Amino acid sequence: MLHFIVTAGGTVEDIDEVRKITNTSTGQLGICLAEEIIKYMEQAGEQDYQIHYIVTSTAIKPDLFNEEMDHVTLYEVTDTKSVLNTINELFDRYTIDYFIHSMAVSDFTANHMIPMKKLAEEIKLKLESTDKEQWLEAIEHTLKNPKAIMDRSRKISSDDDMILALKKTTKIISLLKEKNKELFLVGFKLLKNVSEEELIRTANLLAEKNECDLMLANDLESINQGIHQGILIKNKEVLGKYEGKRNIAKAIVYQMLKNR
Amino acid sequence: MLHFIVTAGGTVEDIDEVRKITNTSTGQLGICLAEEIIKYMEQAGEQDYQIHYIVTSTAIKPDLFNEEMDHVTLYEVTDTKSVLNTINELFDRYTIDYFIHSMAVSDFTANHMIPMKKLAEEIKLKLESTDKEQWLEAIEHTLKNPKAIMDRSRKISSDDDMILALKKTTKIISLLKEKNKELFLVGFKLLKNVSEEELIRTANLLAEKNECDLMLANDLESINQGIHQGILIKNKEVLGKYEGKRNIAKAIVYQMLKNR
Repeated sequence: MLHFIVTAGGTVEDIDEVRKITNTSTGQLGICLAEEIIKYMEQAGEQDYQIHYIVTSTAIKPDLFNEEMDHVTLYEVTDTKSVLNTINELFDRYTIDYFIHSMAVSDFTANHMIPMKKLAEEIKLKLESTDKEQWLEAIEHTLKNPKAIMDRSRKISSDDDMILALKKTTKIISLLKEKNKELFLVGFKLLKNVSEEELIRTANLLAEKNECDLMLANDLESINQGIHQGILIKNKEVLGKYEGKRNIAKAIVYQMLKNR
Repeated sequence: MLHFIVTAGGTVEDIDEVRKITNTSTGQLGICLAEEIIKYMEQAGEQDYQIHYIVTSTAIKPDLFNEEMDHVTLYEVTDTKSVLNTINELFDRYTIDYFIHSMAVSDFTANHMIPMKKLAEEIKLKLESTDKEQWLEAIEHTLKNPKAIMDRSRKISSDDDMILALKKTTKIISLLKEKNKELFLVGFKLLKNVSEEELIRTANLLAEKNECDLMLANDLESINQGIHQGILIKNKEVLGKYEGKRNIAKAIVYQMLKNR
């Protein structure tokens, strides 16, 4: 049996019990991708496949009551950690053949929050007892591990300006080929307001670093304008430029499956 | 004509072009409140009123195609600033009689984002040329106005841990009675995991500070459990305890309108 993973939507990182860091990604492209895989497999007369659809709580979901979606299993996730856990479980259970990572995974998770004044006091106190040569380390250490942090299991309330420390998250895409060298991996690079050359250059770097077999480079400007343009790249070669999520999804699925 | 303002949902503050700080508030209570006002006015045989419904982009909206909603005008908002602008315009245009502020307005807006290492370097540099007596001020100033901030009109990307500085927003509820001394103002206080005594005490303080005519105190714990309990308070006196958004809305509207 063939196993696909499609990730979609934007992750949600908790700041406290009511505040979250979210991402504007709607998950619409993910649904197009699942639909195009189903269409492709149907035309090829194949029934023996499963799409594991990992989708965030804020994204739109495929309609599983639609019988075309018989091949789709839904996994709802929230933050980056829950995405990673779900992926690990799926790789443990199945041999994953194709992975389309269209989800907007947060680069950062909220680590702690502290009133600005208290943080300034802690840095001052720390430096008063630190040799000048160690100041940089001492400041960094205090920024990373201050004492007077707010209790995030409550609802943070304060009349002061605040500092929110963000910790970088695990780059999920960098782990996937390690799990299965034979995996066909499709990556995405989203930038804003850059030249096409810079977009392609950045996408190529990311593709190389993470061993992506296909890479879709897109600019937020076109998404905001409602026309979503994408450049599909393979081994640093531009395969084509597409307009609209449907055409982008069709091109990705075709390029992914045509040489099977 | 009577003019009501009902605010609902949770505000959305931009971190950059794709990342937002959101709030879990669904806006469901706001819809119950609008419906209960309509019911009350209908039973009183009154037709000459308008509900100005200010609702955030992430919240559910009342169904305006429903003819019961003829008296409702919708104003969609995003961040705290847009809420304030909308309220100012409405107070300029109409004499507002009743204001139910059920919206979860962010206490903070994202001011700037900077890699943690760069911030540490800036603080170190600043202190090297600052007298010890002025360290606290110098640190605070650098935390508030660092130089190496990221361009928020793009999509922020970094391999370093980051610092996000949050600036406190205008407390909208504190401005309302200044705009119209005769206004009937309903405020809300949400806490998590506190004793009923502390919840009531905090709600009373807030009611006094902002001259609220009614105050609904609630604990997030009950909302998360799906039973939403609320304590309705007037002049520091508990009028009643209610379970479920429908009953809370009914009690607020009754207490607000019964002495007209």
